[in-house]
Amino acid sequence: MDNLFVIKIGGNIIDDERKLSSFLKDFALINERKILIHGGGKLATNIAEQLNIPQQIIEGRRITDAETLKVITMVYAGYINKNIVALLQANNCNAVGLSGADGNLIVAHKRDHLTIDYGFAGDIDNVNDEWLIKLLNEDYTPVISPVTHDKKGQLLNTNADTIAQEIAKSITDQYKVTLIYCFEKKGILGNADDESTLISKINTSVYKELKEKKIIHSGMIPKLDNAFAAVKSGVNNVIIGKAEDLNQLIAGSTGTSIRNEQ
Amino acid sequence: MDNLFVIKIGGNIIDDERKLSSFLKDFALINERKILIHGGGKLATNIAEQLNIPQQIIEGRRITDAETLKVITMVYAGYINKNIVALLQANNCNAVGLSGADGNLIVAHKRDHLTIDYGFAGDIDNVNDEWLIKLLNEDYTPVISPVTHDKKGQLLNTNADTIAQEIAKSITDQYKVTLIYCFEKKGILGNADDESTLISKINTSVYKELKEKKIIHSGMIPKLDNAFAAVKSGVNNVIIGKAEDLNQLIAGSTGTSIRNEQ
Repeated sequence: MDNLFVIKIGGNIIDDERKLSSFLKDFALINERKILIHGGGKLATNIAEQLNIPQQIIEGRRITDAETLKVITMVYAGYINKNIVALLQANNCNAVGLSGADGNLIVAHKRDHLTIDYGFAGDIDNVNDEWLIKLLNEDYTPVISPVTHDKKGQLLNTNADTIAQEIAKSITDQYKVTLIYCFEKKGILGNADDESTLISKINTSVYKELKEKKIIHSGMIPKLDNAFAAVKSGVNNVIIGKAEDLNQLIAGSTGTSIRNEQ
Repeated sequence: MDNLFVIKIGGNIIDDERKLSSFLKDFALINERKILIHGGGKLATNIAEQLNIPQQIIEGRRITDAETLKVITMVYAGYINKNIVALLQANNCNAVGLSGADGNLIVAHKRDHLTIDYGFAGDIDNVNDEWLIKLLNEDYTPVISPVTHDKKGQLLNTNADTIAQEIAKSITDQYKVTLIYCFEKKGILGNADDESTLISKINTSVYKELKEKKIIHSGMIPKLDNAFAAVKSGVNNVIIGKAEDLNQLIAGSTGTSIRNEQ
């Protein structure tokens, strides 16, 4: 089976023009099939502020009212997505920027929650893997923004980490999939302030231990739960690390690798 | 050869939620291959105003400074494009929203002008017809926003009428192409205030006459020059009419038809 890299980047890279440009150069040079999934960044919050749209975050998730969805669609699916595509094209990577509505790529439903109304937040039902595989086999590089749709005309704001996981899971029949989550740190650190304490491999029992010792806590828990769910569903390897280290993450020489066993 | 409809809509439909939804229902039902090209609308101007970005229009063309390009990319390639795609998907039309950067679809260069600096306005060099044909033959419906790129990482604001013409011209070898320009009137009218004076066909000699009599003037002249350039390059038929009349325009029973001879 051919290798496929599914790589997710977040705000810390997107907000920094120089870092983004350097990351995209490295990404374009990956000589295997690849998919890029990007989150948002500060721009959406800034634009919402300038447009006087109040932002509400509950339990780390943005409440997406109709006006916020408009800003997200503009900034994520428009500005960020098309700029990334143009920069990749300049690096001879044949990128195609897609939302979940395009080609019916990702169908989601409005999140149902007993106590919190998340507004136009979408939980994923289905990934159209057939089209993704076709694009990849024709040497296109999908660049996916975190906007999905419900197939009834409604766009939905969807967590980019979850999109990366669902995309990765959907194509494990066709490719040997490595899922890479880029964030601001070198990986999972034994001591959050010391990069030399990088934990290079985590399996389920180590994960349990690290949670008990509170070394892994808060925002990292859903990220790692996602990672373990992905490996359980057939993703070969999930790596968490720094976007600046992309080449070494691809080579497997840095970052934290999550596998089911070993 | 199979029929292909290349249809361009502008602000008068995009700005009106009900009209847009009704138009997209009709568009989705066209039982032939089709491409939709959309312009902008008032939203970009409104957002630019709210963000305190001054707008400058010279000779009917927006001067695209860096901040204005940002707004255009957000609104045209993001908000408008993805909403149209989601509505088409709800009508079982497998739409794919694209800018000119996606899949390197439309390469342009920054407009060079002796006296006016148009900023990030793009004039088209090349349409990647190979990819378009592939998408069409796989039953996708491309929905194209008026944002192109220069293949060097720069997005460019490009006139949607021109994009429609260049797209139509690029694929006349493969399809019998009908190019439909939707605008606010039933077509070219002998008397601008009286829809019963619709001129159903215009050839080059009638065009010359109508210009001399000032029946066709100002903004209509570049539109019709585009139309004649298209038929000269092998587009079978160019029709100008109202988006609300889409079914009749497709059937050839209303609007103004532009052909080289007859």
